[in-house]
Amino acid sequence: MKPDYSLYLVTDRMRMSTKALDKAVEQAVIGGCTMVQLREKEISSLDFYALALEIKKITDRYGIPLIINDRIDIAMAAGATGVHIGQKDIPADIARKMIGKDMLLGVSATSVEEAVNAAKAGADYLGVGAMFPTETKPDASHVSMEELGKIRRAVDIPIVVIGGISEENAMLFKTMGINGLAVVSAVIARPDIKRSAATLKSLFLGKGGCE
Amino acid sequence: MKPDYSLYLVTDRMRMSTKALDKAVEQAVIGGCTMVQLREKEISSLDFYALALEIKKITDRYGIPLIINDRIDIAMAAGATGVHIGQKDIPADIARKMIGKDMLLGVSATSVEEAVNAAKAGADYLGVGAMFPTETKPDASHVSMEELGKIRRAVDIPIVVIGGISEENAMLFKTMGINGLAVVSAVIARPDIKRSAATLKSLFLGKGGCE
Repeated sequence: MKPDYSLYLVTDRMRMSTKALDKAVEQAVIGGCTMVQLREKEISSLDFYALALEIKKITDRYGIPLIINDRIDIAMAAGATGVHIGQKDIPADIARKMIGKDMLLGVSATSVEEAVNAAKAGADYLGVGAMFPTETKPDASHVSMEELGKIRRAVDIPIVVIGGISEENAMLFKTMGINGLAVVSAVIARPDIKRSAATLKSLFLGKGGCE
Repeated sequence: MKPDYSLYLVTDRMRMSTKALDKAVEQAVIGGCTMVQLREKEISSLDFYALALEIKKITDRYGIPLIINDRIDIAMAAGATGVHIGQKDIPADIARKMIGKDMLLGVSATSVEEAVNAAKAGADYLGVGAMFPTETKPDASHVSMEELGKIRRAVDIPIVVIGGISEENAMLFKTMGINGLAVVSAVIARPDIKRSAATLKSLFLGKGGCE
């Protein structure tokens, strides 16, 4: 079954409106998030593994993919659906060999060159951004709408846009052939996580629209 | 071939007498280190992977095992001999399933219970410590010589001792049935890495002794 990339939640416990990650993720999924990526940089491997198992209970319950950021070992150990790697992680071709064909491989790209290389290396989808300034990753490279268009034309795998995605810009991407919005603060930093997810999804898909 | 655990180098780039890790490792190996564990907590996955490939060139050249601390994915990606996990890493039984039977699995233990559990989970060897106070891991639990003796009697897999091992205490362990010394600062923080390794090894094995 092909994943639905339309509203792809990336977690960031530093920017949450609540302390309970499991509850935040569940609210986001009920609101319409179609995938969850667990991103943790500061905790022990044991804590990351335990957290992945905990979040997997939720994603399994709702039948959506769980993706682990960077840590291929955590993804494999927890039985996640896949792994998402950046340009500073284990190279995509090596990652693909390690996880085999059945696990999803997402790769971050900021340029046509990175996108084409990732697709060649076996990426199932791309995360392209940061599209707009963001507090989550203030030092992330910015990708212009023009470059995004070039990337879209250069590869035929699904693309989610990330970085500063909000209700102000969520409607810009679908007509460009982008497959989904990857959101952090715009969902989990909001007081009403469920409603924020629902609003973003409806803006992305077109008001009242559905696929 | 059974690994020779007698002088097991653990890297720590924060405590090195030189900036070049590759040269430090090579000097340690020439001096008599029989295994190398690469331990990195602060660098990107890509940098860790690249460093592992670099150090593997040296360990391969001298025909000794390269072990990666914590990161099972880096160990697999770099083709290391094995992985060493602590009590805050991915659990040993899960790690064993991930790496298969051919890769070495080392587990840190500070008590008989942890040692027995690690052996049951499939550990090939144990790292027991910290034996003495150490600047590398000031918050590590201390293991008494009495507890070490109990651990030695409770499991039959090889044991290396770690934590504050130095020329002052290197001679205490062999008669207890301990298989090797794991050393950090006592080798790589010293001005003459090669000589420090040689001295520790000769003290461990007994003067002029060999196995």
